Amino acid sequence: MTGEPVTIGGYLIGRLQQLGIEHVFGVPGDYVLRFFDLLERSALRVVNTCDEQGAGFAADAYARIRGIGAVCITYGVGGLKVVNTTAQAYAEESPVVVISGAPGVEERRKHPLLHHKARAFETQREVFDRITAASAVLDDPGVACREIDRVLRVALIQKLPVYIELPRDRVLAEAPRPDSPLSLEAPAGDPDATRAAVAEVASLLSRAERPVILAGVEVQRFGLQDHLERLVSASNIPVATTLLGKSVIGERHPSFIGLYQGGMGREDVRDYVESSDCIMMLGALQTDLDLGIFTARLDPHRTVHATRDRVAVGYHGYENVRLADFIEGVAAAGLPRCACDRPRPQPAFSDEVRSEGTVTVSNLFAHLAAFLTEETMVIADPGDALFAAADLPVHRRAEFMSSAYYASLGFAVPAALGAQLAAPLQRPLVLVGDGAFQMTGMELSTIARYRLNPVVVVLNNGGYGTERPMLDGSFNDVLPWQYYRIPEVLGAGRGFLVETTVQLDAALEAASAARDAVSLLDVQLAPDDRSPALKRLTAALAASVRGSG
Amino acid sequence: MTGEPVTIGGYLIGRLQQLGIEHVFGVPGDYVLRFFDLLERSALRVVNTCDEQGAGFAADAYARIRGIGAVCITYGVGGLKVVNTTAQAYAEESPVVVISGAPGVEERRKHPLLHHKARAFETQREVFDRITAASAVLDDPGVACREIDRVLRVALIQKLPVYIELPRDRVLAEAPRPDSPLSLEAPAGDPDATRAAVAEVASLLSRAERPVILAGVEVQRFGLQDHLERLVSASNIPVATTLLGKSVIGERHPSFIGLYQGGMGREDVRDYVESSDCIMMLGALQTDLDLGIFTARLDPHRTVHATRDRVAVGYHGYENVRLADFIEGVAAAGLPRCACDRPRPQPAFSDEVRSEGTVTVSNLFAHLAAFLTEETMVIADPGDALFAAADLPVHRRAEFMSSAYYASLGFAVPAALGAQLAAPLQRPLVLVGDGAFQMTGMELSTIARYRLNPVVVVLNNGGYGTERPMLDGSFNDVLPWQYYRIPEVLGAGRGFLVETTVQLDAALEAASAARDAVSLLDVQLAPDDRSPALKRLTAALAASVRGSG
Repeated sequence: MTGEPVTIGGYLIGRLQQLGIEHVFGVPGDYVLRFFDLLERSALRVVNTCDEQGAGFAADAYARIRGIGAVCITYGVGGLKVVNTTAQAYAEESPVVVISGAPGVEERRKHPLLHHKARAFETQREVFDRITAASAVLDDPGVACREIDRVLRVALIQKLPVYIELPRDRVLAEAPRPDSPLSLEAPAGDPDATRAAVAEVASLLSRAERPVILAGVEVQRFGLQDHLERLVSASNIPVATTLLGKSVIGERHPSFIGLYQGGMGREDVRDYVESSDCIMMLGALQTDLDLGIFTARLDPHRTVHATRDRVAVGYHGYENVRLADFIEGVAAAGLPRCACDRPRPQPAFSDEVRSEGTVTVSNLFAHLAAFLTEETMVIADPGDALFAAADLPVHRRAEFMSSAYYASLGFAVPAALGAQLAAPLQRPLVLVGDGAFQMTGMELSTIARYRLNPVVVVLNNGGYGTERPMLDGSFNDVLPWQYYRIPEVLGAGRGFLVETTVQLDAALEAASAARDAVSLLDVQLAPDDRSPALKRLTAALAASVRGSG
Repeated sequence: MTGEPVTIGGYLIGRLQQLGIEHVFGVPGDYVLRFFDLLERSALRVVNTCDEQGAGFAADAYARIRGIGAVCITYGVGGLKVVNTTAQAYAEESPVVVISGAPGVEERRKHPLLHHKARAFETQREVFDRITAASAVLDDPGVACREIDRVLRVALIQKLPVYIELPRDRVLAEAPRPDSPLSLEAPAGDPDATRAAVAEVASLLSRAERPVILAGVEVQRFGLQDHLERLVSASNIPVATTLLGKSVIGERHPSFIGLYQGGMGREDVRDYVESSDCIMMLGALQTDLDLGIFTARLDPHRTVHATRDRVAVGYHGYENVRLADFIEGVAAAGLPRCACDRPRPQPAFSDEVRSEGTVTVSNLFAHLAAFLTEETMVIADPGDALFAAADLPVHRRAEFMSSAYYASLGFAVPAALGAQLAAPLQRPLVLVGDGAFQMTGMELSTIARYRLNPVVVVLNNGGYGTERPMLDGSFNDVLPWQYYRIPEVLGAGRGFLVETTVQLDAALEAASAARDAVSLLDVQLAPDDRSPALKRLTAALAASVRGSG
């Protein structure tokens, strides 16, 4: 028995709302205008960005926090502008629902050359099939609602982006409701394989003298932070995180020892992890940046590596084991409490806040470390904004966000838009290089329009500072903008020109107090000033650029 | 016999240069850094945009003028940002060469998770296969140079974008030169079919009393403007153009009668064309916008439609006939000279320049018509900037550029960058709406960096004015920027706030005189003020939005 008919557009909006979405990011266009109209008359809030790229990044940030996000754009000129942001969501496992308007089914039949069409009418869907986990074109009202459910289920269970194309003459088409509710239960893992994996790993950990956990991004994406904390409480095993997984555990948690990044990260954390006799990696993607461009020395003989649906122990693997079940199982296995009497790595940023004179990367991050409060969410753009931020001691869990694997420059400012709407009790501290700011920084306009109040720090060093030490040329320069004057263009927010630590103190204090709008700190840095992490990374990166060939 | 070995990167650069490219637009990144370094040490000039989107649009504009253009970006985070601009180049037949850096062949083998990778290493090429006419991954030095030639030949002959992926460990790899030169000769058409088509059409035209030519964009893309002028000189047949083809003939040419756009365009031009007893369409794409959202009434019985490789006469067609051969053939067919004694449509903008008071769309365009000189190239963004510009009387041929089919908002500002570098003796007049400006307008930064001097007119009406009459909502608003203050942020150029016609006159005069940098006119318009063309179009568009469903 099928339920009462609804419209396709109405059903989609209803489902998004049920799943916890309150904001949809996008830019309108005629093929999606009718759906925007429906959205505006629904309980969902439309958030109009300057460019579709900004909407895509904002939706990704929103999805990382809420567990689902949506970007809604027009056909062709809108959809094909969010290919890169959707690719990032795929690479970094963020469940973004891409909703694209499209020419009507009927008008496609009559006219081959409708505006915004790139090649064939199917081209856009074919492109998205390459970078999403599921897609649907809602051209058939008979199955449209079931198709919506099928695709949303994939996003929610696999934590990956999906694509929905809605022809404009189908938005208000009546469609039968599915007769079963949307099931969000993931398919069960293999209970025998799970038991065996847990038993082997529990036995390894029980015998280990210096066990350590290396927690990665999937712990956050699959909502397993509580699982991780139960395991840590039960076992007292120290926890490091990867860069992409930074803040999956609160960094003031007594068991947190720091970020592990191979040769790129702090030496004391590296020694602690690499000398462990049982390294349990939980939900960590083995990416080049997370592994310090493969400078990591994690001996496979001593490593357990659990990801979304697989556990590897040394050189053998257990298939079809869910990460949640595995962590729960190990936590419940009655492990002996780890004595953990090795000296712990000490947090960075103990001093330098009192330094005077010009701002350097080093004293800037010392000041920022002191600026963090319980409500700060740090959002770092790729480049030294990210590498230097790796050791910023964020207070609570899930308070750090970055594109630390796909590494798309320009993520941070639009991400702040999505993040603060998703978590309105937090105040983003955005760290972004000047080159990246020139890509998407004007989305401060959208931030101003929706009356959000992040603190945006532009690391202004005159260009692509991460690339200079690899191979320099005038292509690494950017035009020196007066970033601090952008609030005058927007008619909102406050800009600060920061050249000295005294000015930095004053600007951070003013930004703290000014809670009604965005604050933008234009922090002047020497072009050759780099964080210690970037200096270590650069050697490895330059070898890759100059290397073979 | 194969020639002397060169490096793959060096061969590619050499070919681009031979083909007339002097500038390559792009943003660097580590996977393409070594190729940027080669570029910078070559005779080609690297033009760094703020965002890859700007580079893609600039390369498209450059290709429209020079017959070929190039955009060079890094893998993933760069390449997937130019999907939309490449789709536009495909839709509007612009031969853009997309050159993407990529992870090295060797490093891909060793490591599955390299940064900037979306899904599989092949994903990006698969995406570009959907929106380009040919692609190559230069991983095999043995065939790399031949592959470069194969792909460039497609771009040049088909006038469509192509994709070249260059793994970073192959840039300096030695590769044998092909033993044959790059042939740019298009495959010949069918001589018998061509003769037959020419004979039939010449006979029709000879008997016609009121023939008319409707010239479209392919005349420009395939470099057939001289062919067209010879035909017009020989036959004296009046010529209208489409919107996308605007300026394929100089608009002061005695045979030019105006733009034909069905019900969207001027009524006198429409009557003239639709009442013709032989309408010869040359290289016109039958798109919805060019046909006034299908309000055109072109009786197929009286229409000849020649495109790149086909001629349709009424309801029958001749295949494999090259547009160049067809136009040449008809021009040489000894047609009687058309008497053309019908009254010609009169140019618009005869008055209104003297009006006083606030600026309206109508008096703005009258002023702009008077502002045009022999050196002005008009670049119009989609929306009313384009529709109102349709009847601007550009002086010489190829002096009007727009995305009048694919209609991607935000094309115009970065297009001005590409256009002025391609045609340094011209000065672009950029017409752009405020919504579109918020997408890509900050590429003024790149324009400033390379010391170009377009005059940019922002039609500031507080949002997406083209959409309001279709279906309005707060999603059609944008934040009101103080656009005229952007030069202060860039530290270059001049900004003008324009509310009255007196201010408009003064600003245009100042912009004329100030030839050292960009001038930006922030022209305040009422949100409900629209050009006559947009008013006519809106009725048709609103019907499509609200129509069926």
